Amino acid sequence: MGEKIVVVTGVPGSGKTTVIEAALKQLKTQGITYEFLNYGDIMLELMREREGVSDRDDMRKVSTGPYREIQREAGKRIARAAERKPVLVDTHCFVRKPEGYYPGLPRWVLEELKPESIIIIEATPEEVARRRIKDATRRRDKELIQEIEEHQLLNRSAAAAYAAFSGAPVRIIQNRDKKLNEAVKELVLALR
Amino acid sequence: MGEKIVVVTGVPGSGKTTVIEAALKQLKTQGITYEFLNYGDIMLELMREREGVSDRDDMRKVSTGPYREIQREAGKRIARAAERKPVLVDTHCFVRKPEGYYPGLPRWVLEELKPESIIIIEATPEEVARRRIKDATRRRDKELIQEIEEHQLLNRSAAAAYAAFSGAPVRIIQNRDKKLNEAVKELVLALR
Amino acid sequence: MGEKIVVVTGVPGSGKTTVIEAALKQLKTQGITYEFLNYGDIMLELMREREGVSDRDDMRKVSTGPYREIQREAGKRIARAAERKPVLVDTHCFVRKPEGYYPGLPRWVLEELKPESIIIIEATPEEVARRRIKDATRRRDKELIQEIEEHQLLNRSAAAAYAAFSGAPVRIIQNRDKKLNEAVKELVLALR
Repeated sequence: MGEKIVVVTGVPGSGKTTVIEAALKQLKTQGITYEFLNYGDIMLELMREREGVSDRDDMRKVSTGPYREIQREAGKRIARAAERKPVLVDTHCFVRKPEGYYPGLPRWVLEELKPESIIIIEATPEEVARRRIKDATRRRDKELIQEIEEHQLLNRSAAAAYAAFSGAPVRIIQNRDKKLNEAVKELVLALR
Repeated sequence: MGEKIVVVTGVPGSGKTTVIEAALKQLKTQGITYEFLNYGDIMLELMREREGVSDRDDMRKVSTGPYREIQREAGKRIARAAERKPVLVDTHCFVRKPEGYYPGLPRWVLEELKPESIIIIEATPEEVARRRIKDATRRRDKELIQEIEEHQLLNRSAAAAYAAFSGAPVRIIQNRDKKLNEAVKELVLALR
Repeated sequence: MGEKIVVVTGVPGSGKTTVIEAALKQLKTQGITYEFLNYGDIMLELMREREGVSDRDDMRKVSTGPYREIQREAGKRIARAAERKPVLVDTHCFVRKPEGYYPGLPRWVLEELKPESIIIIEATPEEVARRRIKDATRRRDKELIQEIEEHQLLNRSAAAAYAAFSGAPVRIIQNRDKKLNEAVKELVLALR
């Protein structure tokens, strides 16, 4: 059986990592500790060992069969880690690539993880766009905002499907500008 | 095999129960009868028997394993009722709780129910908000409306996932203000 | 194993067939050929053989059990065709009928097809409405546009669920007015 596995997702620029780290820090002061694992990192590690892949960008070049096998294996590793203590997994509902949206938690991953809950960190598309563009360039444009909006909406749909398959509840946490504390507080509540 | 099971869902304030009751009454005059079952009621009954839970609010305190077992068992009871006559099940696509959205028809429930169709009763978020607040207070505010909009959108995504898993078609019935008759007529058509 | 199966979907009026045909023509000049199959056509063929159905509109009159059996069988036929060469399947995320939205790729179909990717061809609801109404009548109205918007949104949710179940990535291709070339180029890229 083991301890619980909580999945935290969010588009790049949602501030997911910041919120997670602050929440885990607060929880630690309360004596609650989670093992914090990144799904992509574990996948990359397995791909290094088995397929000789050394770069994150080369991961998708692995053909479908072995790719899914490794995806499931990563799920197994996380489930194993959860035998010792609760695990927070940093991953994606959909990974956006030029070729399309790849599901981060397909059936065979959910079968291994059996997540206790699925959390989505969101912000408005405008906020996400601004956070991505630190260097004051102007690709803060309409197209990027629409792209982020599309991605976030699809992530919600994917989360609904993951919930239907796994039974895990979906929790949406807004990480709005200047309201990081509220987002952290909500995540702390969810993890307690 | 048995008779068909039709699932009817809708957020609190959608007017779901009113529409169902009027439709079943009309159908009765046409000689068509359904057994009308509430998923939550059956769950509560089973939890009383097995877990000593006496209050609806305590249902989520049952731990995940037994909770899902009872959820599946409720599905079995409904399937058994459908051996005798068609069944209309009042339930939710997603149940909204402070901790998140819980799927009302996860995989193991769909496996038992094998619904003939999944119906969603909707109204505009503003209408739903107004129907919830009978007492003329002013929490008819922006936040509540956004919350209802989010819930209704997620319900549609969940219904799409349930359809993908079970093959059941999804039917959306609008129950707009002063147009109850139209909603009832549509539900009667769906149930005939 | 066989060759890959790519699923292409889109609401009526999205211009799906036009985009597909132009893309397949371009690919042919590059020496890449796909077998182009229509899911509905194969279903109708099987229904003719087994259920004596002669008309597309009568397909839904076949009862649920045999209908799903034929739906799965059509998937098997397509998988068989893909043993020889790559297959592009023209089908729907959701088929819109007066009785509701029917999933075009339920679980048992995905189990047979194991699609390499799921592509959605979209346009704005206004563009789709205009393309449907070639004959200058005026049912280009608000209701039709809302109906198309609803259908396209539900298709995205369904695609997310299909991705969750099958692992296939979802690619959305916009086929905007006067930008057919861009849509074709994107589909060519996806199929290469």
